[in-house]
Amino acid sequence: MTRGVFFRDWERLFDPKSVAVVGASNLPGKWGFIMPINIIGGGFRGRLLPVNPRERRVLGFPAYPSLSKIEGEVDLVIIAIPARNVPGVLEEAAEKGIRNAVIVASNFSEVGAQGEELERRITEIANQAEITIVGPNTMGIYSATSSLCALGAPVFPIKGNVGFISQSGNLGVQLMTWGRRKGIGFSRFIGSGNEANTEMSDFLEYLGEDEHTRIIILYIEGIDDGRRFLEVASRITPHKPIIALKAGKGRHGERAVRSHSGALAGPIELFRGMLDQAGIVEAETTEELVDLAAAFSALPMPRGRRVAVMTMGGGWGVVAADACDQEGLEMAELPQGVIQELDQILPTFWSHRNPVDIVGNVRRSNHFRVIDVLASCEEVDILITMGTLLGKKFFRDNLFATGTRAYLQYLRLHTKDVPQFLRSLRKGFFESISRRKERNPEGSGGINPAELGKWTDAVLVRHIHKLMRENQKPIIAVAVNEAEREASTRFQGSGLFTAPTPERAVRVAAKLARYGLFKRAADRGSAKRGEIKK
Amino acid sequence: MTRGVFFRDWERLFDPKSVAVVGASNLPGKWGFIMPINIIGGGFRGRLLPVNPRERRVLGFPAYPSLSKIEGEVDLVIIAIPARNVPGVLEEAAEKGIRNAVIVASNFSEVGAQGEELERRITEIANQAEITIVGPNTMGIYSATSSLCALGAPVFPIKGNVGFISQSGNLGVQLMTWGRRKGIGFSRFIGSGNEANTEMSDFLEYLGEDEHTRIIILYIEGIDDGRRFLEVASRITPHKPIIALKAGKGRHGERAVRSHSGALAGPIELFRGMLDQAGIVEAETTEELVDLAAAFSALPMPRGRRVAVMTMGGGWGVVAADACDQEGLEMAELPQGVIQELDQILPTFWSHRNPVDIVGNVRRSNHFRVIDVLASCEEVDILITMGTLLGKKFFRDNLFATGTRAYLQYLRLHTKDVPQFLRSLRKGFFESISRRKERNPEGSGGINPAELGKWTDAVLVRHIHKLMRENQKPIIAVAVNEAEREASTRFQGSGLFTAPTPERAVRVAAKLARYGLFKRAADRGSAKRGEIKK
Repeated sequence: MTRGVFFRDWERLFDPKSVAVVGASNLPGKWGFIMPINIIGGGFRGRLLPVNPRERRVLGFPAYPSLSKIEGEVDLVIIAIPARNVPGVLEEAAEKGIRNAVIVASNFSEVGAQGEELERRITEIANQAEITIVGPNTMGIYSATSSLCALGAPVFPIKGNVGFISQSGNLGVQLMTWGRRKGIGFSRFIGSGNEANTEMSDFLEYLGEDEHTRIIILYIEGIDDGRRFLEVASRITPHKPIIALKAGKGRHGERAVRSHSGALAGPIELFRGMLDQAGIVEAETTEELVDLAAAFSALPMPRGRRVAVMTMGGGWGVVAADACDQEGLEMAELPQGVIQELDQILPTFWSHRNPVDIVGNVRRSNHFRVIDVLASCEEVDILITMGTLLGKKFFRDNLFATGTRAYLQYLRLHTKDVPQFLRSLRKGFFESISRRKERNPEGSGGINPAELGKWTDAVLVRHIHKLMRENQKPIIAVAVNEAEREASTRFQGSGLFTAPTPERAVRVAAKLARYGLFKRAADRGSAKRGEIKK
Repeated sequence: MTRGVFFRDWERLFDPKSVAVVGASNLPGKWGFIMPINIIGGGFRGRLLPVNPRERRVLGFPAYPSLSKIEGEVDLVIIAIPARNVPGVLEEAAEKGIRNAVIVASNFSEVGAQGEELERRITEIANQAEITIVGPNTMGIYSATSSLCALGAPVFPIKGNVGFISQSGNLGVQLMTWGRRKGIGFSRFIGSGNEANTEMSDFLEYLGEDEHTRIIILYIEGIDDGRRFLEVASRITPHKPIIALKAGKGRHGERAVRSHSGALAGPIELFRGMLDQAGIVEAETTEELVDLAAAFSALPMPRGRRVAVMTMGGGWGVVAADACDQEGLEMAELPQGVIQELDQILPTFWSHRNPVDIVGNVRRSNHFRVIDVLASCEEVDILITMGTLLGKKFFRDNLFATGTRAYLQYLRLHTKDVPQFLRSLRKGFFESISRRKERNPEGSGGINPAELGKWTDAVLVRHIHKLMRENQKPIIAVAVNEAEREASTRFQGSGLFTAPTPERAVRVAAKLARYGLFKRAADRGSAKRGEIKK
């Protein structure tokens, strides 16, 4: 509509001491129920002030008949009533000097002339009273610093450093839920909705300066003022990565955008040029947006595009190398010294080049050593490891599951020989214990039981952290199988980044490299200009 | 090496009555332990015959000192001893008239001149004795009909109709594990290894004629005889889809292939041309190979490229439409009659076009009705639904989790008001029950508790099946969030196909459409030529 040009009180929007909810309700399913119950569930510590003339209490809190009847200041009002009643409430809010409003209702500019007229009215009221509107037609906001989950869905993000602005509410909250599972911590979320008197650039500018936000992700359907967006983004990207998913890229997408948010998408080539110029990283799919948010918030930026790959099986190495070709990354050339070092560690028939195929070697200590060697190699900017996350539990479970399964089948099919089977297992187990000091025999899966307790996944994750800190290089673990994925879920919160396939690891690596190179160029530029380096 | 030209006894390879394991061992971690214990665990019903001169029993079964000491016929021998000892064993196998050998050991042609010489020797022995070698350097084979899990990893596939030939063993078994989680059933697996006296085309030809295999997936590093591959594949694709992941596509990938399997990859453009000509569907990543295997084995083939999308939130619809642009699919134009039908069901502010944004409408019966209308629409070839899988459990869990979370926070932050909170919840609950007959009020999330028991996910899955059968159109459910994914895992075995994002659903839809159109053209061609239609 019409962007409000006035001082915006962001602090009271994201760290409110008091939040009124107009239309608050005890009826499950209503927005007036969902918003406050999520605010309560999120652990908001300020005052929650339900406004509902027909209830004495809403969700346990005393209800007020109207905004004006609330004593004391209100930092933020959430308006959860039908569209036609919003202007009146907004006028009340203006009178009370409220500076921020989250307007949940839809049926505004997205539904034709009548809605547009209504949105114009609320925009005028808000601009005059210097009220920042989030929405209308929004799923709400989240703020980590005030534990404020003013969201239309039961999403309780992990607190972290990712700020997220989304022009689709449903998509936004779903991606946060997804992010939660991947261990991504969020600082702020804004569902910008119809953007009555704000635009994405306003929120972007705020997140650029917000000390709690280190990475910014965007879901964009349309930008009205491209120049301003470019200008704002360009100031941020040298310090904080911005990752954007642009929707409405093709013919069908554009039409869908028009019917969804009413935004004008414009040609994607133009938009891509803008992203490039501003140093914004483009995510091509929703999945990639989540992958990149997780990676950028957990990993150091690489200094170049040379990738080393460690793999347990040759095929996975090939697939990773293919992906590097596809994404414009280089496979690092390993120096002779590194090859010789690896010769000391690995069976003679390892690949002797990058991808480093350790040919099914499951001796855990060797994994660590190979990772050490590759992470400290000068020729390597990014390290991708496969088959690393399968420590203690994996071996135990695997051996146990394999044994148990065979035992059950024995009971079913060869009942009378069960004692013989158990005797064989016992014999083999003790023999393998007594041989634990031997080197892995050729061609065997060679498990060394003595190592199981020492080289656990937890130790590995700590080790990877240390290596990333020391070498300032990203290490990406690929977790293809179930056990690995479980392990990765367990450790993701602790700053480990895992990808489910080598191809997705490489895609992420390519975007990291791209931003890493952009940032280095920007740093050099500002160093030349005598600016202080961040 | 040198392809054997002789009658191959596939039946005894995939349905053996007796399997000998040379090098069988009680030592965990050894191939000679892993292979037989997985065979036992898989429930193989034939004779398992361990060969080990130093043991009286292996895994409970009486051990034989050598192959020749086994009385009776041996259909398949698994050779799990170091490379240098393989020729001798193979000669014994030849004497015993064994027709099939799975050779696990590596250190053959993949490791230079000496290994090549060794491989040449075993190839000669085998060709002379008409023994089909799987491998060497293989992770083994799987066969559903004989419950034979002769695999180097504890993978126990679901029995089904997907045949899989992989030129990487590790990648192959990992993808089968992954497939298991996605509910994909396998008929056969062949890790073709170094392909001493076979080539991929031999196994492909067999799977093409195998009545237990309805879909074939391939992981290819290199094909020696492209013409034969093309000829074999072209005979199969009109009846059975073949899906191939080609590795070694670019510069780095090719080099990695040479060092892995020693195959010559050749220019990918040439290869793509061949795939196209043969009607083979290309999977671009490992993830896509799994997605396609699941989709092709569960869904009917579409008649065209027109997609309808049902979504709970506009953003997801836009993203899906973008993906359609990207993948060359059309968004179906909904006829006026369909729009009017949907008007009867949906809130007034639904999108009124495709993507069908049902604007957060969570009334379950409406989901079913919308799906009905779209699935039976003549303009629609493929239906993608989002937000459908969230039946009974979702609402219950969500309401409960939301309430519980808020309650716990109340206990922590507003202890004295807890009774008030509970009173509010109770009041709201009973009020919503008494209003259950009302239409959804404008803008509310409008849950109708009366519907919860009736429209469950199980009912939905049955309904989707019925619609797919009646309309012969694929319906793809997108499961973005956790609850949906759990539901989808539960139902995947029963023939439901779900994708984790709309983009991946569309990618799959594009490949389905491509093959669907290829098959229709092929059917028309054979009908013209007077051949019997399959």
